[in-house]
Amino acid sequence: MDLKSYLPKKQEVIDRFLKNYLAAKKVNSNCPKKLYKAMGYSLMAGGKRLRPILAIASYETAGGKSKNIIPIAASLELIHTYSLIHDDLPAMDNDDFRRNKPTSHMVFGEAVAILAGDALLTEAFGIIANTPAKPEILIKIINELTHACGTRGMVGGQTADIIFEDRKIKEKDLFYIHTHKTGALIRASVLIGAIMAEAPPDTLSALSKYGEKIGLAFQIIDDVLDIIGTKEELGKSPGADIIKGKNTYPSIYGLEESKIKAENLINASLKAIEDFDLKAEPLREIAKYILNRRN
Amino acid sequence: MDLKSYLPKKQEVIDRFLKNYLAAKKVNSNCPKKLYKAMGYSLMAGGKRLRPILAIASYETAGGKSKNIIPIAASLELIHTYSLIHDDLPAMDNDDFRRNKPTSHMVFGEAVAILAGDALLTEAFGIIANTPAKPEILIKIINELTHACGTRGMVGGQTADIIFEDRKIKEKDLFYIHTHKTGALIRASVLIGAIMAEAPPDTLSALSKYGEKIGLAFQIIDDVLDIIGTKEELGKSPGADIIKGKNTYPSIYGLEESKIKAENLINASLKAIEDFDLKAEPLREIAKYILNRRN
Repeated sequence: MDLKSYLPKKQEVIDRFLKNYLAAKKVNSNCPKKLYKAMGYSLMAGGKRLRPILAIASYETAGGKSKNIIPIAASLELIHTYSLIHDDLPAMDNDDFRRNKPTSHMVFGEAVAILAGDALLTEAFGIIANTPAKPEILIKIINELTHACGTRGMVGGQTADIIFEDRKIKEKDLFYIHTHKTGALIRASVLIGAIMAEAPPDTLSALSKYGEKIGLAFQIIDDVLDIIGTKEELGKSPGADIIKGKNTYPSIYGLEESKIKAENLINASLKAIEDFDLKAEPLREIAKYILNRRN
Repeated sequence: MDLKSYLPKKQEVIDRFLKNYLAAKKVNSNCPKKLYKAMGYSLMAGGKRLRPILAIASYETAGGKSKNIIPIAASLELIHTYSLIHDDLPAMDNDDFRRNKPTSHMVFGEAVAILAGDALLTEAFGIIANTPAKPEILIKIINELTHACGTRGMVGGQTADIIFEDRKIKEKDLFYIHTHKTGALIRASVLIGAIMAEAPPDTLSALSKYGEKIGLAFQIIDDVLDIIGTKEELGKSPGADIIKGKNTYPSIYGLEESKIKAENLINASLKAIEDFDLKAEPLREIAKYILNRRN
């Protein structure tokens, strides 16, 4: 199991699906080109495709073998991209750069950026509903996804993140923000892959735990990298969290303690799937990668 | 068939569902109260519930008898409300008032308004996925809805509406804007009711035509009311379209010709369902109401 070749291979599969999706829509639709350009600009901005890859790796871990996981996995990238576009808006985090490129509203204006985000969120559910799979499985996936992305998940976490800016908060509130703003969609990505593979309850439960742990670890490492990363590595200026008065793990626990917390979470994620066979190797390697990544 | 008693009765059913939905979520979730408040503020701001009522009326026309249409119908109001919140934002139409109340961003700030819209859109699909009905029917409904609300529908139309502001456009572009920005969700509301009732293809096709015609007529009348309506009737200042440089039917065809076009569309909508029995009376009355409404 070599993650260095695994990740680009899966990225390519997702990128190809997304490119075809954008091209096909363009033919089928007479909607303004600017909307498509804005959607494609952010969707193809060089994302790591972590969430889709987690869904595929989880699907394969649970014994899934069909190509139908690809649209499901790709839909997670639409959701992730929508959340980044809206998060970068002036009224939200007010970020000018992401992945070394100007953010959507810097290029297309705020109105089109808002609408591109709305379109990506809507179309994600359209892609899922169009996937050739058992309807009851697709409904389960949509259930899981709306839970992870709505008030009880990502949007809830993003709201708390914004509301609590420049305010000293309790540890439990920071835990809420991180597990919801970032953790919920990562956990759901893992879970959705397993649901698509029709995994039995104990497998679902182990993978859910794995996803929960790596999801929180991912955001803690994000917080850490915002302090120790370089502009080249991050694709945006480091130190942004401090300037914005964001509550982060390092701001509450310090840098070293935050790293230890992330490491413990990654160890717990590996423990959750320790009884799984070799098919789970990609998930194990991804967990380690999340801890050691530089961007 | 008395529409004056029919509409409030159905409005009450939808309002009750939405109230329970908001209350239940609050218990189940520890998400920031401000997000819930913002969602509830706009959701319970006294909307006409036209889209949910169309779905119910269409469902009953097609012989549907279960209460399971209610969550499906209510989800349309979440989508409609999200589109209004985002549409009112400073970067979009920049409206301070709607339904005689300050708009969401005036009360909760831009960031929470954006997030409340995102949450409503996401939760709409969650409500549908949680409705006790055949999964294959729910998937069909989600398909129809994403088609009507994404790039090929509402968001496409909203983007064109914004892009074309202050520019003289062709008749076909105005037709595109109106049929997509407003028409698509109204048509989908009618169609989704019929899909939920498992209507046969010829019924679906007649109701689709009905929905298409009343959808465009609805937006033309909106344009007309923006000129001839009073602030009390509209719940916002009339003349906003002219100030914003919006392309409208009156701006291209004049007031009288626009009214005639709306009347012709309503007649065509009635013709599309002329072979239907008495169960279609609410749909017929709603079509006439759309033409003669004052707000």
